[in-house]
This record gives sequence, C-alpha cells and structure tokens, in this order.
Amino acid sequence: MQPKAITLRGAPLGGARFPAICAPLVGRTRAALLAEAAVVAAKKPDLIEWRVDFFEGIADANAVAELAGRIKAAANGIPILFTCRWHLEGGEKIGLSQTEVVSLYRAVCESGHVDFIDFEMANEPGQLKEVREFSRAHATQLILSFHDFERTPTIQELNARFARAEQLGADIAKVAVMPRGMHDVLTLLAATLQSSQSLRIPLVSMSMAGAGAVTRLCGGAFGSALSFAVGQNASAPGQMPIEELDAALAILRKALGPSR
Amino acid sequence: MQPKAITLRGAPLGGARFPAICAPLVGRTRAALLAEAAVVAAKKPDLIEWRVDFFEGIADANAVAELAGRIKAAANGIPILFTCRWHLEGGEKIGLSQTEVVSLYRAVCESGHVDFIDFEMANEPGQLKEVREFSRAHATQLILSFHDFERTPTIQELNARFARAEQLGADIAKVAVMPRGMHDVLTLLAATLQSSQSLRIPLVSMSMAGAGAVTRLCGGAFGSALSFAVGQNASAPGQMPIEELDAALAILRKALGPSR
Repeated sequence: MQPKAITLRGAPLGGARFPAICAPLVGRTRAALLAEAAVVAAKKPDLIEWRVDFFEGIADANAVAELAGRIKAAANGIPILFTCRWHLEGGEKIGLSQTEVVSLYRAVCESGHVDFIDFEMANEPGQLKEVREFSRAHATQLILSFHDFERTPTIQELNARFARAEQLGADIAKVAVMPRGMHDVLTLLAATLQSSQSLRIPLVSMSMAGAGAVTRLCGGAFGSALSFAVGQNASAPGQMPIEELDAALAILRKALGPSR
Repeated sequence: MQPKAITLRGAPLGGARFPAICAPLVGRTRAALLAEAAVVAAKKPDLIEWRVDFFEGIADANAVAELAGRIKAAANGIPILFTCRWHLEGGEKIGLSQTEVVSLYRAVCESGHVDFIDFEMANEPGQLKEVREFSRAHATQLILSFHDFERTPTIQELNARFARAEQLGADIAKVAVMPRGMHDVLTLLAATLQSSQSLRIPLVSMSMAGAGAVTRLCGGAFGSALSFAVGQNASAPGQMPIEELDAALAILRKALGPSR
C-alpha cells in the first residue's frame, strides 16, 4: 500500500521523494532568521519550518506576520510551516499565554505567508476549534501534533494520538516521542505503519535522539510522510544534516524499489 | 547494550564499523570467480562469501579447496566465508548429496583457506555434529543459518531459530526471511533485537527483497552483526551495492551516536 504524501496545491510535497524533508529555522532575531532562511533554502528542503518560539520578537503578532512574509521570500518558493511549539511539548519558554499564541497563529494565517501551521492536539478544545476554523478559512493546512520528550507511549496510545488528530480535523497528524531503547523505536514504527493504513490523512512520526535516528531514515518506509533534518541548526535531538539525510534516503529509496 | 560483533583472531570483523559488510562471489567458472574476487576485494568489504553452489566445478572437493586458496590470495587479506547454500533454502541446484556437501565443507576446512563456513541448521543432526566437529578442529567459525524465501515466521519462531543455532554449537546464528509487507520487516527486527540480547553468540539477520532493504541498512542498530551487499553480483534479492550500503551506514552510525 502506497503511503499518503502531504500535498500542497494538488502536488505531493517533495515530488517523487518520500518522505519529504523539512528543515527548521530557530533564529532568535530578525537578522539571524533571514540569514538562516537563505542558508537553509539553498539546501533545498521540501519544507521549511519556522519555530517562532525561538524568536525574541514573538510578542508582536503583526511584526511576526510581516517577518513570515520576508522568510517566505527568502525561502525562494519552498513552502513554509509555522510552529509555535508549546514549552510543555519541547518548545522554548515564551511570555505568551495560549490565548495569545492562538492570536499569533491567526495573524500569520491571515497574512497568507505560510502554507502549514503546527498546533499541539493537547490544547483546549475551544482553541483547537478556533485554530481549525481560521486555518481552513485562509487555506493553511493544519498539523495537529503530540510530543513526548521523556518516553514512548504504548502502541495503542500512539495509534490513539494519530486518530485523535484526524478526529479533531487535522490535515496532517504528527507524533514525536523519545525512545528509551531500540524496542521503543520499533513501537513507534509499528504505530506509524498501523496508523498510516487506517488514517485518511497523511501522518508524520519520529523517534528522537540517537536511537531514534533509524526512524528519521526509515520512517518513510513505514508511512511517515516527512523527516526533519538540520539545515543550519537542529530543533530537536537526533536530526541529521539535510545533505546526509537526503543522500541516505536516496540510497534507501532505490533499494526499496519502484513502489516507493 | 552494545551488540555483539563477529570476531576473528580477537578483533571485531569490520573494526569500528558495525554491522560489518559482506559481499558474495557467485561466479560459475574458475576464471570468473578469480576475476570477481579481485573486483570485490577492491571494494573492501569486511568479509567475502564464496557461494560455491554457483560454481560449475563443485563436484571436485580437492579442486574446490585449491580454488579457495586462490580466492583467499585474491581477497588480499579480507576474510573468506565459504557457503554451499542448499537449494531448499535459496541456493542453486547442484548434483551433490548432502553427504557430499559435508565432505566438501570438510575438505575446505582442512585446507585452512577459509575463516568461516555457513551450514543450514535444518540439516541432519549427525551432519550438523560432524560439521561442527571438523570446523572447530580446523579453527573455522561455523554460521548455522535459516532461510525462508516465501514468508516471515512469527517472532517466536524467529527467536527459536536463533536459539537453536546457539544450542547446536554455532559461532554465529543467521536468519534470512522474506517479508510480505512492512509488518514482517518489523517482526524480523523485533526478533533480532530480542535474540541479540538473549544469545551469547553474535547474530546476523535480514529481511529480503525491496521491503527488507530497511533491515540491510538498520539491522545493525537492532543487533545484526553483518549486512550483505553487492560487490559485482547479488546473491539474494534486496542487496544494495556495497558503495551505497557503506555510505548510508556511515551516515546512520554517525546519527546513532557514539554508542554505535
């Protein structure tokens, strides 16, 4: 069974390469972000994620929306994923309430400068509904995500998280967890395989840190549509340099054969 | 837990690279084999496997033993694994009885030209005992193997195969099976992880064909000590070119971190 690719304007993200590759931006200043965007875009990931929780100017929603436009220009046609990762799920500590975070997402969606946003499925139901509504109204795809930086839940729990994202109306479901051994890596891959066969939407999964590197490379074979790699700086443990991930994925895709 | 490497004369096969890489020789004639050995040795695998079941001169045990010496010389210091794969487990059809195959293994062990032999654990108990005795007497390590080119047994059956090899006195246990989907690939990896933690001897495992390529690349992270790759010609479905496997493994080893 062919895994589901993330699509954008009717075409699969990454074209023939599955999984697609996403590189993060984690600059703290406007100047650093624009420089980072240029460096990362030159490495030609399929998607660039702006992790705005690293940005010192995050409190000014209008300025963030304007900067999103500058980053979009620097990305040179590469789609943008906008993410304000909650500190409870591995993000930076920021001064904003979750209500203010929702307003930030709204401003950025209204700007039309980003193609995807990522919001944690553990947020309040009212906020999830609100984010779903304005992201849809502005044709911005919604990733609903779950992160656990301490452990790997059971396969049942992992499958439930993927299913929950779909139930909440996500365009894409994402699960990122920490392994405590290679058995946890297998659990994440097994849940990815099962959920990729049962969900209607594409999913993204990864096991983090060194042991989880196997999933960044092989997760696509089990149904994960996107793998995160380092353009200039990592945003989570275990990400490998984009050039290396791209080279290894090309070798693996060829070995997996024409069905991939 | 650090997986167990295959060792030879006190040193791990492959040195710092785990898993080690083995490339097969499948030439049908003496001239083809010596040419193939030179080409393959130049690609510097950690081990070269002579699949003698492809060799048209297999019926003359003394000539085979002498040719093993020529191949050893062409291998230029790379250790040799000598395998007469049974047609019931994926080998070529040959004119020899299993009794004659045992005599062939004996002649080659006595020659001192090979470092390892591979014999299927499904052979007769008396033959297994005999092969174990003469291989030990001539300091040749014994791989006891199981192959299924049709399907992937359950995880319990796979673990039982690994354990059986150890019970039969193997120096190394090998299991190679065919997946019917990515779930079978996970089963093989899970059995590899469990058995690598319970066995005292090193083990080698792989899932074959395109879907199984993931195990040729990532099996080491789950405890498989050896991955087979193509030097000049493949000996089983799913093997990738040695240059590609080596490059992808180097990337993965770096990402997995210092514990690998």
